[in-house]
Amino acid sequence: MSPNFVAPPNGVATGYAITDPKDYLNFQKTEYKLEPLEDDRVTVAVECCGVCGSDHHTITGGWGSWETKFVVTGHEVVGRVVELGKNVTQFQIGQRVGVGAQVGSCGTCKWCKNDNENYCPEPVHGYNTLWPDKSEHQGGYSTHIRAQELFVFPLPEEIPSVEAASMLCGGLTTYSPLVRNNIGPGSKVGVVGLGGLGHYAVLFGVALGAEVTVFSRSDAKKADALKMGATRFVATTPGFEKDLFREFDLIICAASGTNLPIDEYLTTLDVGKKFVFVGLPDEGLKEVKSQALIWGVGLSGSHIGCRTEALSMLKLAAEKKIKPWINVIPMAQAADAIKSIEDGSVRYRTILTTDLL
Amino acid sequence: MSPNFVAPPNGVATGYAITDPKDYLNFQKTEYKLEPLEDDRVTVAVECCGVCGSDHHTITGGWGSWETKFVVTGHEVVGRVVELGKNVTQFQIGQRVGVGAQVGSCGTCKWCKNDNENYCPEPVHGYNTLWPDKSEHQGGYSTHIRAQELFVFPLPEEIPSVEAASMLCGGLTTYSPLVRNNIGPGSKVGVVGLGGLGHYAVLFGVALGAEVTVFSRSDAKKADALKMGATRFVATTPGFEKDLFREFDLIICAASGTNLPIDEYLTTLDVGKKFVFVGLPDEGLKEVKSQALIWGVGLSGSHIGCRTEALSMLKLAAEKKIKPWINVIPMAQAADAIKSIEDGSVRYRTILTTDLL
Repeated sequence: MSPNFVAPPNGVATGYAITDPKDYLNFQKTEYKLEPLEDDRVTVAVECCGVCGSDHHTITGGWGSWETKFVVTGHEVVGRVVELGKNVTQFQIGQRVGVGAQVGSCGTCKWCKNDNENYCPEPVHGYNTLWPDKSEHQGGYSTHIRAQELFVFPLPEEIPSVEAASMLCGGLTTYSPLVRNNIGPGSKVGVVGLGGLGHYAVLFGVALGAEVTVFSRSDAKKADALKMGATRFVATTPGFEKDLFREFDLIICAASGTNLPIDEYLTTLDVGKKFVFVGLPDEGLKEVKSQALIWGVGLSGSHIGCRTEALSMLKLAAEKKIKPWINVIPMAQAADAIKSIEDGSVRYRTILTTDLL
Repeated sequence: MSPNFVAPPNGVATGYAITDPKDYLNFQKTEYKLEPLEDDRVTVAVECCGVCGSDHHTITGGWGSWETKFVVTGHEVVGRVVELGKNVTQFQIGQRVGVGAQVGSCGTCKWCKNDNENYCPEPVHGYNTLWPDKSEHQGGYSTHIRAQELFVFPLPEEIPSVEAASMLCGGLTTYSPLVRNNIGPGSKVGVVGLGGLGHYAVLFGVALGAEVTVFSRSDAKKADALKMGATRFVATTPGFEKDLFREFDLIICAASGTNLPIDEYLTTLDVGKKFVFVGLPDEGLKEVKSQALIWGVGLSGSHIGCRTEALSMLKLAAEKKIKPWINVIPMAQAADAIKSIEDGSVRYRTILTTDLL
């Protein structure tokens, strides 16, 4: 039965909610009032939604206590436009769109105006978050979400919905540092950690024309990395950096663990180049000495991406026929997806398709 | 009596040497054979030489054991060309020149060929260092030094020798990150620590047209900072960063201490901008969390500067009539200069003038 993409009755959505971080696998169908449909907002009926590591961090309380009473996670949404705020001009009812890990920003700050709305100091993220008027925003393990028009992206027809979904956070989070660091034909890119984010760093790095090397703690994912287009796979055993002196134009670190051999990685960067974190280890960077930095290399971070990057990423994905490695299951099985993140078995992203509409 | 700028008899120089790190204030006049005058090298008779923090780190053994049997420090040399290797084309006997903290590089690597010879993996530094043929190189608290032509800089007539000397390391080390980070009119630059390096970061930042803010642990140097051209002085008491959210286009860290409030500084950088270390704290960056980096900012380092930067720095210094804050004393008083680094009393660089020629 194909989903019934209609507006939420009386602005009420139904989602798979977690009500207690101690019971974080117990998704319960829950009805809740959406935030108001302000003039610049769009309502999207959810067709499918990717499962991101952030979802696990949030529902387990790993990133701290919640802002909202319960949490409906999901910030990699593909769906149909079913309502338009009255100032929304670029979408039509019924149009297929994507929404990622940010649904709002102030719209007036310097960063909102210079293609850095992903760095707006007053962001509204994909779930477990409040709008300035304190109304709650929940995510895409649900029938509907609302978002500012700026954070709703038209999708190229060529990309199936389940393949587009996880590009909207996982894809964009790796695409943004690639393009901000001018990666293109001839560039050499390192990717640390081959999970959901890392696999996108490989796919988009290759699509941009770079030679990609994957670093991982063991050889377990070597075959996958090469199949994704990486030209080299390096298991980070002691001394791994010796043959890679100043090799890379960029290293994207998608590993969530601490105790990364950062000083060793820094020696593999060319002068003036960066090691960019796209993940958020909870602990500090204990092992970093500025002696390693003094050779003109840097440590940096990156947070999602901006709209113009999202649109160019989707265009590239359509042109290059990028296929993410995904596992598609019904939304009612969200707990299984969370478990596969926890035990590391996910290869490489789970997409939940709606069973609520 | 003006110095007698002649070639070293039989290639023998006289320098003020330290022979034991435990006795690091005991400079003794010592004769030693210079490295060979290879075809690409120049011999410079030393008129004056700046005293850098590195000199103190080296003679005390703070940077580890020595490469040479004794050490003649000094890598901020101004003097006269007195000998030319047979392939040297751009200098004449008697010409006034400067030599900084590097005297040699391989000349063939990628970095030597792309204006990054200061990042050559086989550098020969200003003293306590060996050439590939194992001949020793000593520094500028002496009658003579030898250096590859690439590391010898013609000096604009307008700059007196004692004012040019410390630009060649201290100046260049701060000028390079300023220009590599596109600092110019309208830029906002932070400078952490007002010592020899920090004072140059202020002078050159201002000369490039930036608005410069100096950060220091106390207000002790506030008046000096403002006199150098800084527009603001911030004592880093708790909460200092609160009013400076994403203010800076670059922060140059010239502080040698550890326990810097790095996470706080990172919040004062604009998106995509960097906190650049030009000093070398011995300990790691214990307090850095990647959470601070994730907002698109970076930690980086920088090592001296390249020839093209040295030449453009000297041109700028001449045009803008930059006056370093220096204290000029005879070379025989080198121990006093070292003591003033140790006790922090130097304001802001000591220049030793020859009493050996």
